[in-house]
Amino acid sequence: MTPAAPILLTPGPLTTSNRTRQAMMVDWGSWDDRFNQLTASVCTQLLAILNGADSHHCVPLQGSGTFAVEAAIGTLVPRNGKVLVLINGAYGKRLAKICEVLGREFSTFETAEDEPTTAADVDRLLHADSAITHVALIHCETSTGILNPLPQIAEVVKRHDKRLIVDAMSSFGALPIDASEVPFDALIAASGKCLEGVPGMGFVFAEKAALAASQGNCHSLAMDLFDQHSYMAKTGQWRFTPPTHVVAALHEALLQYAEEGGLHARHQRYANNCQALLDGMAELGLRSFLPAAIQAPIIATFHAPDDPRYQFKTFYERVKAKGFILYPGKLTQVETFRVGCIGHVDADGMRAAVKAIAEVLHEMCRSELAREEC
Amino acid sequence: MTPAAPILLTPGPLTTSNRTRQAMMVDWGSWDDRFNQLTASVCTQLLAILNGADSHHCVPLQGSGTFAVEAAIGTLVPRNGKVLVLINGAYGKRLAKICEVLGREFSTFETAEDEPTTAADVDRLLHADSAITHVALIHCETSTGILNPLPQIAEVVKRHDKRLIVDAMSSFGALPIDASEVPFDALIAASGKCLEGVPGMGFVFAEKAALAASQGNCHSLAMDLFDQHSYMAKTGQWRFTPPTHVVAALHEALLQYAEEGGLHARHQRYANNCQALLDGMAELGLRSFLPAAIQAPIIATFHAPDDPRYQFKTFYERVKAKGFILYPGKLTQVETFRVGCIGHVDADGMRAAVKAIAEVLHEMCRSELAREEC
Ligand SMILES: Cc1ncc(COP(=O)(O)O)c(C=O)c1O
Ligand SMILES: Cc1ncc(COP(=O)(O)O)c(C=O)c1O
Repeated sequence: MTPAAPILLTPGPLTTSNRTRQAMMVDWGSWDDRFNQLTASVCTQLLAILNGADSHHCVPLQGSGTFAVEAAIGTLVPRNGKVLVLINGAYGKRLAKICEVLGREFSTFETAEDEPTTAADVDRLLHADSAITHVALIHCETSTGILNPLPQIAEVVKRHDKRLIVDAMSSFGALPIDASEVPFDALIAASGKCLEGVPGMGFVFAEKAALAASQGNCHSLAMDLFDQHSYMAKTGQWRFTPPTHVVAALHEALLQYAEEGGLHARHQRYANNCQALLDGMAELGLRSFLPAAIQAPIIATFHAPDDPRYQFKTFYERVKAKGFILYPGKLTQVETFRVGCIGHVDADGMRAAVKAIAEVLHEMCRSELAREEC
Repeated sequence: MTPAAPILLTPGPLTTSNRTRQAMMVDWGSWDDRFNQLTASVCTQLLAILNGADSHHCVPLQGSGTFAVEAAIGTLVPRNGKVLVLINGAYGKRLAKICEVLGREFSTFETAEDEPTTAADVDRLLHADSAITHVALIHCETSTGILNPLPQIAEVVKRHDKRLIVDAMSSFGALPIDASEVPFDALIAASGKCLEGVPGMGFVFAEKAALAASQGNCHSLAMDLFDQHSYMAKTGQWRFTPPTHVVAALHEALLQYAEEGGLHARHQRYANNCQALLDGMAELGLRSFLPAAIQAPIIATFHAPDDPRYQFKTFYERVKAKGFILYPGKLTQVETFRVGCIGHVDADGMRAAVKAIAEVLHEMCRSELAREEC
C-alpha cells in the first residue's frame, strides 16, 4: 500500500485484487469464441449468485450502473405503464428522474433518509392507485447505506399483480437475494461493486417472460435490453463493442468470489468490515447516521465531527496521504462523510483506516501546529 | 506473441501496448482530484489532436462508441429537427436506425458500399429538402474501410447553413481533421480505436454554442451530453461512475501517441501498415474490395479466395493459431473478410500476418492433407 495506490473505501470504484486487474493485461478480440465464452461464463455465474437461471436472463450492458437502470426502465416499462418510485435517498431520486426523462408516467413516495420504505406503505399506495403497473425500489440506498426490505415489498407488489424493478447496485453479491423466492421483473447491478470487478459495465436480471414481451418499448437503441439479449442469444456476442478488459476483470473477480465461498463468505467479510468500522468510529466518538437495524454492511455514513476546525476536504486529503480514500456525504441537511465497507479489504484494513482517521482528526483538531488548517 | 495473446487485426478492440494496459493496474477513486486531473488531461489532449479547443468541448461518455453516437444525435438534434443520413455501409445504416428509435425525423441517401458520398450529392439533397437541419456522415465506413470526403461535405453543409454530425469512430487520431477548417456540430470517436486505448468509453466533440443550446433535447438521462458536460465543467467529475481503468489506459495511450509524433506519425504508421498489407495480399492473389483511391488506411476488405474449399471460420481459426485475429466481412452481397491496419502493430507485423495468411491458405486449399476441411 503506497500513497500511489491507496485503499478505496468508496462504494465503487473500489479496491480490486491484483489478480483481477491482472486479467486486463490481455487484449481480447470481441468477435472471438474465447471472448464469447468469457461473457457466457460471466452471465452464468451472475445468474447462479441470484439462483435465477430458470426465471431470469442476465443481460449485460456497456456503461455505468445508471445506464443499466435506465435500460431496465426503458425496456421493461411499456410506454403506457406507470411507475411508483420509492425514495429515501439520491439513487431513488435518480429513478424518478429517469422516468421523467423517458416520459414514463410515475408517482413517488418519499421517506426520510434514515427511514426505510415499508411493505405496508407499498400496499397502501398500490391500493390507492390502480394505474400503477411497476414499482421501483433501491435495495441498499448507497447515499446513506440504508437497507430497504426487499422481500417484504416484493411480496406485496406480487400480491397486487404488479411488477417490481430493483436497483441492487450496491447490494448484489453481498446481500442474499433469491430469485426463486423474491419475485421481480428486473434487478440491476454493475461490475464495480460487491463483485469487486472494475467499473465499466452493468447487468440486468430480466424475468424471461417480461423481457420477451418488451420488444419495441425502449426509447434508445444502445440501451435496448430486448435487442441486446436477442443478439447475444443468437450470436454469443455483444451487440456493440464490449468493454473487453472490464469483462475479463469481472470474470476473474467472479472466480475469486466463488473461491472465497460465494455470497455467504462475501456477506460475512463485509459485515465484519462494517462492524470493525462502526466499533472503531464509535470509540473515536464519531456518530453513525443510521441505527444499526437498518444499516446495510455496504457503506456507513458518519456525522462530521462537531468541531469548527473540521473541514471535509482537508480531512479527506490527510486520510488519503495515509493510504485510504474516503467518500463525501450525500445528504443535504446534515454534514456527513461516508466510508465504504466493500472491495478487496478485510477487517484489519478497516481497523487501519480507523487508525488513520483517528490520527488525522487528532492532527487537525487537537494539535496546536495544525490549528490554522482546521 | 503467444497463442494466448494473438495480435488483433480488428478495428477495435485492437492490440494495445503493454504500457497502456499497465496503466490499468491502479484502482482510482472516481471522486479523487488525481483522477479528475486524468480526465481533464484526456479531454485536453483529445481536443488538441483536433485543433478544437477554441470551438468545441470534449464530452466523454461511458459505454461503447454507439452510445456516444446516439448521445450526440439525441442531445444535438432538437426534437423537431430533421437529419439527412448519408449511408454506404453498416455504420451509416446504424445512424438511421438511431434516428428512427429516437423519433427524430430523417431521410437517407445511400450509395453502393464501394462508392463514397460526394459533396455534390449533399448539395443537391439539401437544395431539394429545406426541412433538413442536420447531416450525419460516417468518415471512414469501417464495414469496408471506405473514406468519405469529410472536408468537402462539411463545406457544403456549412454553405447551406445546416449542421454536421460526423461519426469518426475509426478515423479520429489517424486521419487529419482540423476543427478550425472543417465545420461540424459534433464529431464522435472512442477510446479503443486509433488512439489505441482499451474499449469502454466514447467521446463527442461538441461545438460550444450548439452544446449550450441543447438543454432538454435528450431522450435519455445517461446519454445527455448537455448534462454530462455541465456537471463535469462544474465539478471536474463524471456525472456517473466512470470506467476508471479505461480512462487511465486512454490517458497513457495518449501520452504514447504524442511521443510517437502525434497524428502525422500515427497516420504514417497506419498507412505503411495498410500498404504492406495490400502489397502482400496482392502477391497472394487476394483482391482488395476497394480501389486504392477510396481506401482509408484503417481496415481493408478482401474478397474471399475464389476456391470452394475456403471457409471463413476455418481460415480464421487457423490464422489465429498462428497469432493473428482477423475480422469477418460485413457485406451482404459478396463474401469477404477484413484485416485491420490499426493498433499497436507495425508494417513488419502486417507482413508477418500476410505470411500467416499465406501459409493457412496453402494448408487449406492446396495441401492434400487438409483437403477435407476446405
Ligand atoms: C444504489 C445505486 N444505484 C445506482 C448507482 C449508479 O451507478 P453508476 O454510478 O455506476 O452509474 C449507484 C452507484 O453507486 C448506486 O449505489
Ligand atoms: C464508424 C463506426 N461507427 C460506429 C462504431 C460503433 O462503435 P461500438 O462498436 O464501439 O459501439 C464503429 C465500431 O467499430 C465504427 O467503426
